[in-house]
Amino acid sequence: MGNTFGHLFRITTFGESHGGGVGVIIDGCPPRLELSETDIQVDLDRRRPGQSKITTPRKETDICEIISGVFEGKTLGTPIAILVRNKDARSQDYNEMAVKFRPSHADATYEAKYGIRNWKGGGRSSARETIGRVAAGAIAKKILKEVANVEIVGYVKQIKDLEGNINPDTVTLKEVESNIVRCPDQEMAEKMIDLIDQTRRDKDSIGGVVECVARYVPKGLGEPVFDKLEADLAKAVMSLPASKGFEIGSGFAGTLLTGSEHNDEFYIDDNGNIRTKTNRSGGIQGGISNGENIIIRVAFKPTATIGKEQKTVTSDSEETTLAAKGRHDPCVLSRAVPMVEAMVSLVLCDHLLRWHGQSKVLT
Amino acid sequence: MGNTFGHLFRITTFGESHGGGVGVIIDGCPPRLELSETDIQVDLDRRRPGQSKITTPRKETDICEIISGVFEGKTLGTPIAILVRNKDARSQDYNEMAVKFRPSHADATYEAKYGIRNWKGGGRSSARETIGRVAAGAIAKKILKEVANVEIVGYVKQIKDLEGNINPDTVTLKEVESNIVRCPDQEMAEKMIDLIDQTRRDKDSIGGVVECVARYVPKGLGEPVFDKLEADLAKAVMSLPASKGFEIGSGFAGTLLTGSEHNDEFYIDDNGNIRTKTNRSGGIQGGISNGENIIIRVAFKPTATIGKEQKTVTSDSEETTLAAKGRHDPCVLSRAVPMVEAMVSLVLCDHLLRWHGQSKVLT
Amino acid sequence: MGNTFGHLFRITTFGESHGGGVGVIIDGCPPRLELSETDIQVDLDRRRPGQSKITTPRKETDICEIISGVFEGKTLGTPIAILVRNKDARSQDYNEMAVKFRPSHADATYEAKYGIRNWKGGGRSSARETIGRVAAGAIAKKILKEVANVEIVGYVKQIKDLEGNINPDTVTLKEVESNIVRCPDQEMAEKMIDLIDQTRRDKDSIGGVVECVARYVPKGLGEPVFDKLEADLAKAVMSLPASKGFEIGSGFAGTLLTGSEHNDEFYIDDNGNIRTKTNRSGGIQGGISNGENIIIRVAFKPTATIGKEQKTVTSDSEETTLAAKGRHDPCVLSRAVPMVEAMVSLVLCDHLLRWHGQSKVLT
Amino acid sequence: MGNTFGHLFRITTFGESHGGGVGVIIDGCPPRLELSETDIQVDLDRRRPGQSKITTPRKETDICEIISGVFEGKTLGTPIAILVRNKDARSQDYNEMAVKFRPSHADATYEAKYGIRNWKGGGRSSARETIGRVAAGAIAKKILKEVANVEIVGYVKQIKDLEGNINPDTVTLKEVESNIVRCPDQEMAEKMIDLIDQTRRDKDSIGGVVECVARYVPKGLGEPVFDKLEADLAKAVMSLPASKGFEIGSGFAGTLLTGSEHNDEFYIDDNGNIRTKTNRSGGIQGGISNGENIIIRVAFKPTATIGKEQKTVTSDSEETTLAAKGRHDPCVLSRAVPMVEAMVSLVLCDHLLRWHGQSKVLT
Repeated sequence: MGNTFGHLFRITTFGESHGGGVGVIIDGCPPRLELSETDIQVDLDRRRPGQSKITTPRKETDICEIISGVFEGKTLGTPIAILVRNKDARSQDYNEMAVKFRPSHADATYEAKYGIRNWKGGGRSSARETIGRVAAGAIAKKILKEVANVEIVGYVKQIKDLEGNINPDTVTLKEVESNIVRCPDQEMAEKMIDLIDQTRRDKDSIGGVVECVARYVPKGLGEPVFDKLEADLAKAVMSLPASKGFEIGSGFAGTLLTGSEHNDEFYIDDNGNIRTKTNRSGGIQGGISNGENIIIRVAFKPTATIGKEQKTVTSDSEETTLAAKGRHDPCVLSRAVPMVEAMVSLVLCDHLLRWHGQSKVLT
Repeated sequence: MGNTFGHLFRITTFGESHGGGVGVIIDGCPPRLELSETDIQVDLDRRRPGQSKITTPRKETDICEIISGVFEGKTLGTPIAILVRNKDARSQDYNEMAVKFRPSHADATYEAKYGIRNWKGGGRSSARETIGRVAAGAIAKKILKEVANVEIVGYVKQIKDLEGNINPDTVTLKEVESNIVRCPDQEMAEKMIDLIDQTRRDKDSIGGVVECVARYVPKGLGEPVFDKLEADLAKAVMSLPASKGFEIGSGFAGTLLTGSEHNDEFYIDDNGNIRTKTNRSGGIQGGISNGENIIIRVAFKPTATIGKEQKTVTSDSEETTLAAKGRHDPCVLSRAVPMVEAMVSLVLCDHLLRWHGQSKVLT
Repeated sequence: MGNTFGHLFRITTFGESHGGGVGVIIDGCPPRLELSETDIQVDLDRRRPGQSKITTPRKETDICEIISGVFEGKTLGTPIAILVRNKDARSQDYNEMAVKFRPSHADATYEAKYGIRNWKGGGRSSARETIGRVAAGAIAKKILKEVANVEIVGYVKQIKDLEGNINPDTVTLKEVESNIVRCPDQEMAEKMIDLIDQTRRDKDSIGGVVECVARYVPKGLGEPVFDKLEADLAKAVMSLPASKGFEIGSGFAGTLLTGSEHNDEFYIDDNGNIRTKTNRSGGIQGGISNGENIIIRVAFKPTATIGKEQKTVTSDSEETTLAAKGRHDPCVLSRAVPMVEAMVSLVLCDHLLRWHGQSKVLT
Repeated sequence: MGNTFGHLFRITTFGESHGGGVGVIIDGCPPRLELSETDIQVDLDRRRPGQSKITTPRKETDICEIISGVFEGKTLGTPIAILVRNKDARSQDYNEMAVKFRPSHADATYEAKYGIRNWKGGGRSSARETIGRVAAGAIAKKILKEVANVEIVGYVKQIKDLEGNINPDTVTLKEVESNIVRCPDQEMAEKMIDLIDQTRRDKDSIGGVVECVARYVPKGLGEPVFDKLEADLAKAVMSLPASKGFEIGSGFAGTLLTGSEHNDEFYIDDNGNIRTKTNRSGGIQGGISNGENIIIRVAFKPTATIGKEQKTVTSDSEETTLAAKGRHDPCVLSRAVPMVEAMVSLVLCDHLLRWHGQSKVLT
């Protein structure tokens, strides 16, 4: 259970790190959307391992195949199945992990829950699982763009204690993609890259914060009370591997202000639209988008799998130590950027469809 | 849409602040659980307005009626319907809000989404909606206690910049309930109460952080990949009114550590159980509970409705000002404690049932 | 579980025959629909007991209260809660059934499943549970009428071996309501009434077939592959108490034809629309409405609870006999008509909204 | 939407008749079940085209590949993805159907709904879509067998007006598989085969009835009120291509009996179990299994695609005629048997898991 996400734009992912492959079924995609593998591959390439010196050297081209749901270049309205085969799987790197649990990884909990686990490369708990999300997210992004001109841009805001200075209202995809760490503050990006590089050499790992902005989101998306837009966004990104925290708008810092300081006062703009002067709400009020930019932040912990020796136990409850082999990211943040964008896109697209399915029915 | 939560232990809430009442249907409750209104009323009393000098003076006794699903003191396995009538509704306080949107409240977005809204007291966006959650949460708590001896304790961790010093591993409900702000650090609690009181006199509002711990949660709860336990917890509490951020375990602070500092090393305890020495994971690894204490934190913004005059607009797009009448909380945190506990209970109970429905079927 | 129906227009019912009451929550209703208790009461009155000499004499006025979701005569888009209190509950009639299982009723299976049951009047398995369905169905009907001018008319087609001659393409609600058995073939209706009356005097019961037609359903409703329109209709009506069979269009009789006899040939009508000359498909092809009249039939078995003595067993596994007391319908068919209409309306309304939420998004 | 089925044992199918392939994701399968492609292939072979002279000559070996969810011969508890590639696709046979709608087929309704369709071989509306169902059903069958020793046997009961004489309480899979039409009444089977053969030569088609029995189903499965076991069974089989009717137990014939004739009287059997003397209920009372054999019947219309010339229209609304090319089944019944078994298995397995997830939690 738990491998399906979304209510009208609904995805189901499958696959383990080592095995036949990974992929996704997208059910509920509106018909007649132009779509090809190329649309999807762009984001898969931003996610794939081996894309730069600061990511894991595992070589996966992650070429996707659309198996169903597209005909003569357009979506049919039927399920879109996307498959990516596993290629460069060195399962021998994982032999030790067949018996030793990696600290702060999912090895021990999968064993406790299922009484069995695919110990090669983390199986289902591998970041490789996010391929399906990113592929589906690329389609969601395209729908959002076509229907409502929505723009979604994610970027690295912080690596360990290095924080970039970025304006979410103006940042562009091009700026994000201009360096390998995906931090559009170019000066800070270089420091971040150096830090990650040093961490890799130390056989250690570091974490950080991804920020993501969605611009031109129509007013009215989000379904009170449980499916508030920020609630679904929180679930979406907190279901990504290694995420430990979520904020919308002012977030935790907002707790330090008074209501009169924090409230976003309304005004009428030059086009007669109701707008807010500030955006501490992060584009959502009462669970519903208000037309301002939606801004969220996600905390990612340092990668659990590290080369340094750590104390751990075996599946037979023996104490031991482990210095992980295998090819791992010293820092997942640059690759997490397309993942966060994908999850934000999936939520917004689903709510866009839900809005069509309720609020717009009676005219 | 969006008023149902949970997969096997599934609740649906209804009701507006002013109208016939509010309530909840609980579907999927295991049969033969002893249950009476008293079990539910305890938590409703912790949530209700007018309970102390630091909450809104609206007088609601919030007496609940179980309409169905219980027979001769035991649950039937059929839907449990719980109704709380609205009593002390002074809708005249809201006449001004029929046309003026409160800044950072849901007035404008409900209007944008639905083209209509119950402007009396915020309608569905009122915190009064949480009565159904708290009632259902009380039942979830009872199941968790009976089946697995799980303990769930929430408390105020921070009010504005005042932060309590509390040990989540040992804090008790009694300590939490020993003061009206529900901060078990008694010294800090007094300062918090003074600050809230001062804020009320200033016709302003403040926010803060609620922390919640769940102890003795069995290993194995949580459904990768989208319904990871932390993802469902995040959604659950981010669907509460005024929440702006969520953390599990080390949270945002965890991004400042290296992997070797952050990882929770395993050991074998005296009973032969696999445990972790530290708990930066917050009781969940790979989306699945690991048997350690589950610890989360939720940021609540300062209450949007304040007595101070603010700039705003009318539903006819005229700029104006508003100094809100009505009876509002200067700080929602003390009342948010049972809400957070309820949402955590609902998630854990649902996942307990899901675990029975998959992992335990083949023996 | 299992008390929620529908994907976008989603209802949850609650309540037992004897207890606080019965009702329904409707989530996903489009906002700004004019709605009052009167709209709902019409169908509840067609469903209620004691409405004529051929139904159970239990006296229930079944007056409904809208508790939430409606404001100043219009739907808010928030959950609509409807409550009907139980009044004329003579639970003493059921004392014997506290220990004796009624043959072919749900007593024994509820006991087996839940280990507990509300034995007063059948509890949740009582036909009284359908009040919530009929109330919700009345709203669905209204939406279908407003959005697409859909007409839904149900009627008694057959009582035991008495079969009416009715044209589904032209039959009107007025004709159906012109006699108490709700068979618009007036001559046959009288025979049916006499047969039911005789059966009542015999302390026995009889069953029959309800037919229901939906006219002016837009082309394109229904979601292949599992949520085909006929599949959802089948589930809807087979979830009604006492239903034993379902047919769409040619149904079982269609198995006696060859393909060349059975196929509905296409033609272009005077308005240039694609139509079928015959309608053996019953308005649905490939799970999707084709614009022709949707015609279904539902078989209802004879009422299980009868006054005649029958062999049975007790909950303590003793063999015994039972001649049921209590006030029961000798034939449920006339009251089943609004139930079938309600279920058909709920399915069509849900699929209308789903169609808006997928097929109509890209234009 | 609509391509997912089940609540805890949940499947999602994908794929069109002509394209990359078809398949299914199974989410919620209990971990540690022994499983290999062989377990699945058995039923796929019973479903596949070209298996005998009375089925379509399309040559598809329908070899399945398990892509994920199985490790070292056992299920992981993670999603099981199964893929079957399309091989013998002669899309040129369908060129005419690119513009002409086949009468009583899904061509016109898919076009109306989606504004686009894969006209090659019926696309998603092809019976080829049922491969995913049959594959998933084979796993469900295996779980039912292991956990509760449930046996599910389907067979052809009727072809056009030829009806077999079969005892559902004793019929075996071996008897069913002993002839190519899958009617265990051997004498009648020969007549059926002759009739199908003649129909094929006539370029026409015929339909019939599949009956299916589930034996040793535990008492207590089924979730009142909407997810009654017969309701979910009805939806399951009415979602199969070409189905037009559903019956459980006495079905439509039961409407001709009185209650005293129809009711299943209880008795205590030699083992002290509560049983019914007759089984007109078909193993389900009040939506819940009662431990007796579950018996259903499904009506399948004659195949829509026939070689005989019929009147039809084009997608440009021109009247025309069509004599279908392509390779089609003159009668789908023998291949429908494993499909019906699969759908019954999926429903029962899902409800078995749901029962574990609610009724069995408190002991």
